[in-house]
Parts: sequence; C-alpha cells; structure tokens
Amino acid sequence: MSKIEYFDRFIPPKGFKFAGVASGIKTKGKDLGLIFSEVPCKSAAVYTSNAFAAAPIQVSKEHQHAKMAHAIIVNSGNANAATGKQGLKDAYKMADITAKDLGLDSKEVLVASTGIIGKSLPMGKIDVGIIKAVKELSHNAGDDVAEAIMTTDKVKKVATVQFKADNQLITLSGMAKGSGMINPSMLPQATMLSFLVTDLRTRRKYLKKVLSEVVDKTFNAITVDGDTSTNDMVVVLANGTENNRKVDEKSPDAPVFEKALHMLCESLAGKIIDDGEGATKFVTIEVGGAKSEEEAKKCAKSIANSLLVKTALHGEDPNWGRILAVVGYSGVTVKPEKLNISYTGIPVIKNGSPVKTEGRKLKAAAKKKEITLKIGLGAGKGTFKVLTTDLSEEYIKINAEYTT
Amino acid sequence: MSKIEYFDRFIPPKGFKFAGVASGIKTKGKDLGLIFSEVPCKSAAVYTSNAFAAAPIQVSKEHQHAKMAHAIIVNSGNANAATGKQGLKDAYKMADITAKDLGLDSKEVLVASTGIIGKSLPMGKIDVGIIKAVKELSHNAGDDVAEAIMTTDKVKKVATVQFKADNQLITLSGMAKGSGMINPSMLPQATMLSFLVTDLRTRRKYLKKVLSEVVDKTFNAITVDGDTSTNDMVVVLANGTENNRKVDEKSPDAPVFEKALHMLCESLAGKIIDDGEGATKFVTIEVGGAKSEEEAKKCAKSIANSLLVKTALHGEDPNWGRILAVVGYSGVTVKPEKLNISYTGIPVIKNGSPVKTEGRKLKAAAKKKEITLKIGLGAGKGTFKVLTTDLSEEYIKINAEYTT
Repeated sequence: MSKIEYFDRFIPPKGFKFAGVASGIKTKGKDLGLIFSEVPCKSAAVYTSNAFAAAPIQVSKEHQHAKMAHAIIVNSGNANAATGKQGLKDAYKMADITAKDLGLDSKEVLVASTGIIGKSLPMGKIDVGIIKAVKELSHNAGDDVAEAIMTTDKVKKVATVQFKADNQLITLSGMAKGSGMINPSMLPQATMLSFLVTDLRTRRKYLKKVLSEVVDKTFNAITVDGDTSTNDMVVVLANGTENNRKVDEKSPDAPVFEKALHMLCESLAGKIIDDGEGATKFVTIEVGGAKSEEEAKKCAKSIANSLLVKTALHGEDPNWGRILAVVGYSGVTVKPEKLNISYTGIPVIKNGSPVKTEGRKLKAAAKKKEITLKIGLGAGKGTFKVLTTDLSEEYIKINAEYTT
Repeated sequence: MSKIEYFDRFIPPKGFKFAGVASGIKTKGKDLGLIFSEVPCKSAAVYTSNAFAAAPIQVSKEHQHAKMAHAIIVNSGNANAATGKQGLKDAYKMADITAKDLGLDSKEVLVASTGIIGKSLPMGKIDVGIIKAVKELSHNAGDDVAEAIMTTDKVKKVATVQFKADNQLITLSGMAKGSGMINPSMLPQATMLSFLVTDLRTRRKYLKKVLSEVVDKTFNAITVDGDTSTNDMVVVLANGTENNRKVDEKSPDAPVFEKALHMLCESLAGKIIDDGEGATKFVTIEVGGAKSEEEAKKCAKSIANSLLVKTALHGEDPNWGRILAVVGYSGVTVKPEKLNISYTGIPVIKNGSPVKTEGRKLKAAAKKKEITLKIGLGAGKGTFKVLTTDLSEEYIKINAEYTT
C-alpha cells in the first residue's frame, strides 16, 4: 500500500475551483461558498436521517441521484429548514442561479444550508452573492469555502491527504463545519456539513459504499450534544482529473484510498469535537465486549450524551459512578460481574467490583485534556468508539444566546 | 366521590412516627431518616430499572416481597451503589440494626440510600445514627425525614392529601427528594426517592397496581437531565389504622383513593421539577396525535432531554426550530404535513407549515416562568405529558462540583 501523507491544511485537488463570499445573510463575514469542478464528478453523499430534512437536503438528494455533480452551492446563517413550500422553491432556485451563472444544468448543482431554522432565505442577497462567487472562483480559495460554512464554529476545519494510485499522486481534501447539535445519525447516516473533493478516478457505486462505511465510523461516531440536525450532509466529489485506472473494490489501490478517506474524515470529525461548543475536553469512549456493534454504539453514545458524565468531565471529577449508572440504564446487555471500566488508563471497575486506586492518581488523570473511557460489558464481541466533549457553562451561554 | 383536600405540608397519618438525624455521613446536616409504623403495613414499591441497581434496592425488594413492612431506614450522602459484596452486606446490616433497635424482624425493614456512588457506607456512623433516630421517633417529625434525604435539593419536598373513605378521614402524605439525575424509568418504573404513608386500610395487590399506574404518569413523566439513577425508589406504606372497609378495585372508594394518590405524586413530582438543578423554567411538554402512548412518551422525553431545546428555553428564545428538529430525529411516526406545534398557546407550526406570528408575542411568551409546548404528530391518538426544566450554567456548576 502506498504511503498516505497527511496535511493539516487544504490543498486543492486538480480541476477544482472555490469561492467564499459575504452575501449579507449573516450580519458579518463570509456566508456563501461555491465549489466547482471543471469537469462533471462522480459523487456520493450521506444525508441526515431527521424526518424533517431541510429543503436543500431534498434538492441535493434529487440532483445527486439524477446527474453527475458539477458544483456545490452552500450558505450559512440560514438552514432553510421548516420553511415549507417556499423553502423548497428557494433551494431549487439556489441551484438554478448557480447553474445559470456557471453554464450548467441545474441538476448538476448540489445545495446545502446551515444556520437558523424556520426563516425563509433572503433570496435577493443570495442571488447577488452567487454572481459574486462565480466571478471570484479560484483554485486556491478552498479555505474561503471552509470559512463561509462556519456558524458557531470558532475555527475553520480543513485537511488533506495525498497518496499514490496507479503511480499518480492523488489529492483528497476536505472541509467541515459543526460544533453544536452534533450527533450525526445520517443513514447510511450529522448540523455537520462536510465537503470532500478529490482528483481520483473512481466508480460511483464504489464511492457510495466506501463513503457510507467511513462516515459511520467517523462523522457518525461523534457527538457534542446528542441532537441531530435537519441539515447534516457529507458529500464527496471525484472529478477523475488524474489518469489512474479507475479505483473500485477490486482495484489494488482500493485499500489505500479507503484508508486515506478514513484518515481524512477522522481528522475532520476530530476537529469538530475539538471545536465542540464550549468544550474543554477531548473525550474518547471505547465500548467493548458488547453483544453486537449496535449495542456497543448505543452504550457509547448514551455515555457520551449523559449530562452527568459530561459535567463530571468538565469538573475534572473522575466520577466513574456516573459512567456505571449510564451503562446500567442504556438498555444494552451487560454482565455486571464481568463489567470493566478504566479511566484514562486506570482501572476503576474490574469484574464488577470497584478497584482500590489512589484518589490522587485518578484526579490527575481527570485533569488531562484528553480523556479515554474504556468500558467492557462482558457480553460479547461488539466494539464501538465514540468521540465527544465535556459540557461547560460556555455551551449553555452559546446555545441560550444563539438565534432570533 | 368524596372531596380531596390538598395541603402543601406534611400531616402525619395516624400510627406513624418519624425521625431525621445528623449521623456524620454528610459533613453537615441531617443525613439519616427513619419512618416507623406502630403496626405492620401493606406496602407497594417501584424501583429503578437500572441494571446496576444499588445494594439497598436489592435488599428492599427482597424484604418487601417477604413480609409486611414496619419501617424504612434511609440515608443521604452515600448511595451504597457500585460497592460490591461489602455494599450488600452493609445494606442488610442497616436493616438488621434498625430491626434490632425497634424490636422487629429484619425483613420488616426497607432500606434506601442516595448520594455518591462507589464508596462504602461509614457503618460506624450509621450504627450510632440509627440508635439516635430510634430514640427521637416522633409523630410530628415527618419533615425531619424529608430533610434527611436531601442531597443537591434546595428545598424539602412534602405534601398531604386527605379524603374520606367509608366515612373515615384518611390521611395520605409523602416526601420526596431529587433534583438532578432525574429521568425516572423504574419498571413498573426514578436518584429520586419518595416515601408515601397512609392510615388507609387497603389490599396489597391493589396498592401495587395503583402505585405502578400512578408513578408511570407522575414520577416517571418528569426529567431534569435524562439520567436514570441506580437508587430510584417510590414506596407507599398503608398501616390500616383507620377503620374503613378495605379499599380495593371493587370498592366504591377506589376512585377517590386513586385520584388522591395521583394528586399527591403529581405534586411531589412537580416539586422535583421546580427544584431541578439550576432550573429557571417549569416546562410542560404535551405530545398528542402519536401512533401510541409509547411513541408520544418517546417524543416528549426526546424534546425534554434535548440540550438545544433546554438551552433555548433557558435563553428565553422561542426557537421552535430546535423542537421540530428533535421531533424529526426522535424516531416516532410523524406526518410532516399534519404536524402542529404551539409555544405557550401560540401556534408556530400548523399542518406542517410555519405560522406567521409576531416575534414580539412569541418573545413575551418565552419570558414566562411556565412554558407549555404542545406537539401534534398527526399520526394517531397516543398522548403523553412530560414535565421538565431548562438547562442553565448553574446546572453545570452544581454537577461539575458535586462529589469526590
């Protein structure tokens, strides 16, 4: 397998152009992003499983199924969700305007929105903004899109991986936004948005399968507050500008591509957790010994979403009793006499009984920025890893003040 | 049906004695409570459904099934949960000491604990405390027990209802504790503790059935933070000191007793919500039009437990978009085109579309202390009502600092 190189910045793959502009949807800053490929792309996407999927989700699904993708238009500041028929009209119109200005078919344009729910889009501003974005398209403006999709995010989130396929240097890079309302459960399952772009040549069906699998272990394995947005969406565009033999499941280059995609998504998901609203801790929860992967996931997410666990983490209190209580009510199969819990490397419950540990050691562990909780249920072989944050006063402040 | 009179204070039913003492489990204040009936009682109880039910829960279950109940011994400051075999020994010992000092059989004593998890009980202090409590038993000391069971509670919670059965004046009174980790799911389903006492003559089987039904609609319909404790327990003791004909399902007095019990439990559950950790709002969530009562409950609890909804309530932001998002991911059947949401009397979503309302009116509604959210799913006839609180910076502070 060829080496994969990771870059903590956005390196544009061949054949892509970007723009991020301030259109006035938000009171200040960039709020409209455009991603454009010189040639049509194979695309794959996973969307929110929320029953009230926003208008842009509906339009993107339709377009992405119908045609190759050529561009993505995205706005922040307004989610165009719960906006009724007008919302759907507006989402179609965003695609129409973009397509017209770029000389494309509307169905070649995917649409995404993030921001407040229940207000109609200011279409006049968006119209003018799109014209401006099209004019400003540049190969080197990926970071501007990353900036334009931020809402409560404090930092922009970009990353790149490069690897060789068929002796060609492939660039796969991405951007993401999301800090609150993060409990992605898109099916094949995030208001997390992530746009991934690559110059790899590949097959659509294969791309879809790989994206679903990778998203399930990365973006879908993070949770800040347990809420799942109406607008979550992860899209990958592959424009095939490189001359590698098409990568699919049978190709010798499949493993390196899959690993590279996983690495990119894991990095972006980690950046979302790192930027979790008001977060002071980066918490990894690993559940093992579960009856099934599904039960391991359920248990890990219950712990990650427990207010009492999250506040104890914030208070740097190694309160494993709260963890135990959550395992107990999570509804998964657990053998109490085989339960194991360790707190950042220190066993606290072994075979169902509390381990006598030095309080000082535990307290020191709780003061680390990175906390790892390992739980063994003793009921089977299912495992799942979830990333989350603590819950701070700052989180409440941000979310009590955001909107209206 | 005879009139039911409600008192916002604790009136002792005939034949009961109480004591609450400071035994030193907590660094200050009363921490050990004793309830004693002069004669053995019919009892009924509902216990936590947590897989790691604490030692006192296990002991109370065993004792309550084996014998009539004669006394309840309860401590705060230490939950005796996740304490292994020692914990179980200690819980039995609490019953043994109490029984010995009162001249009872150990199995006539029920045991309850609340407080931190994972530390063994200081049995020396408890032993001395029980002796003291037995000496101080008094008909008028119900409030002392209510005080002794408090942990993060700011106020003690007591209430009384009186009604006539068979022309006898029956007193039914209760105390409760609980402010955080409240998402009761005892089966026939609460760290909420509640002890109810009455001088009614009734039958055990009937008492059990009625308590389960009432708890499900009251204590089990409140949630502060979505966590379910290892120690939740609601017990009712009926000592039959009044000379009414035994009340059971066929008795003409059944309706008044059931209504009185519901009124008492609803009042105590409301007091828990009112005292919710850091709570500034009293929030009622009524879901209707659900496919089943189960789905209505699931949807109502998802809304009540959403961090984004709770923080918006705290910020006095009538952000119904967050409510809609939760309904969408709660996993219940909903007809989007038939969805109705109203915010403290103001319709915001009607038949799936946003209602144009005056922002000012909505903002004024959001400033009220009592908020009612009504959601119609348009999918059936199931209904459920849940009480909850907002989520404040104060909650984080309390829970980040509590323990160790």
